[in-house]
Amino acid sequence: MRILYHLPLSPYSRKVRLALAEKRIPFDLRVERVWERREEFLEMNPAGTVPVLREDNGLVVADSYAICEYLDEAYPDLPLLGRTLAERAEVRRLVAWFDGKFYAEVTRNLLYEKQMKRLMGRGTPDAAAIRAGHANLRPHLDYLGWLAESRVWLAGSSLTLADLCAAAHLSALDFVGDVDWSLNEAAKDWYARIKSRPCFRPLLADRVSGVTPPPHYADLDF
Amino acid sequence: MRILYHLPLSPYSRKVRLALAEKRIPFDLRVERVWERREEFLEMNPAGTVPVLREDNGLVVADSYAICEYLDEAYPDLPLLGRTLAERAEVRRLVAWFDGKFYAEVTRNLLYEKQMKRLMGRGTPDAAAIRAGHANLRPHLDYLGWLAESRVWLAGSSLTLADLCAAAHLSALDFVGDVDWSLNEAAKDWYARIKSRPCFRPLLADRVSGVTPPPHYADLDF
Repeated sequence: MRILYHLPLSPYSRKVRLALAEKRIPFDLRVERVWERREEFLEMNPAGTVPVLREDNGLVVADSYAICEYLDEAYPDLPLLGRTLAERAEVRRLVAWFDGKFYAEVTRNLLYEKQMKRLMGRGTPDAAAIRAGHANLRPHLDYLGWLAESRVWLAGSSLTLADLCAAAHLSALDFVGDVDWSLNEAAKDWYARIKSRPCFRPLLADRVSGVTPPPHYADLDF
Repeated sequence: MRILYHLPLSPYSRKVRLALAEKRIPFDLRVERVWERREEFLEMNPAGTVPVLREDNGLVVADSYAICEYLDEAYPDLPLLGRTLAERAEVRRLVAWFDGKFYAEVTRNLLYEKQMKRLMGRGTPDAAAIRAGHANLRPHLDYLGWLAESRVWLAGSSLTLADLCAAAHLSALDFVGDVDWSLNEAAKDWYARIKSRPCFRPLLADRVSGVTPPPHYADLDF
């Protein structure tokens, strides 16, 4: 069986889990404690990061960007990157927005400071970073809400990797109780729609040692 | 004529300039002072970042990841992302390495701290970040040198976006005098090879107000 090496709170791993599930590609999950720098893992991905996908034929694909592009090329049924050049440009722009800008301005300031630093033994959270993360969440939810109101899904009329990517970051933040969904009604409605899809169920069942998600995390009517 | 909105020292802009030139796609360059937050530019790319490509037919592609994937789909002659699934996975892994890991550990610590902060009026350089950037450059050059010794080009037997991406970051750092090429002979040989390609000439002619590149910057026998 193909294996996805991941961490439950990694938004990049969550994006790939959602993409695999949405495309109905079966896979086994293996937790990889990247901070232990396991030799066999570093051979597969010298960057030492999750996610890494290992196919049954031995092909290893490292990095969530490489994996998601690979999945749409190797398993073109149920495409997630859009069909026309313009659609694909928009999907990828939004993936870059959430994996790059949203990560730098929100996810890293909250999730990394509050959870990953502790797990990786890299010191105490930086209070200024956490304040910045909370402040930055609001305009991002507004942008997401605006997209969700203007379109059926974030990038257009179909669900795409843009939705999965945004949901991956937000679900990881939601797990640690850092999303105030009352900030934007349209963003909350969009999240409720994507959260109720079958691809989302395994994420809602995630358990992480030392972290208790808020009661609404797995609630489809939050 | 298609237009690429860019900044001369942006490694992501340089990557796209190299990709366009290597694929022999003609384009005009427009400098976009992103810190001025020009309204018409933010309409094209709400993230407010360069590069942004505008095609003659009006299609706008924002973000260097979206642009490079678009270019290989829209102009499939002279592919830069590899041919087989395995090749493409390796090219994208290395693009993610340089755009993600190398940027975070080296480019941002040196180029952003020393140049972009000044341009954008965001305070004085952080000495600890600059020290970290210099320290991190060495293992990265060693990895690049190891790849260049084991393979013809970084990702395999052909020149790919992995080479252009690595060269984009290193050329921007080289412009501000931050690459000590004596650290790794194989990395230097690889850079000399890519620097002498026609696609590189416009980058070597770049001028940036307030910055004088070191004498070896445009020298093919540095």
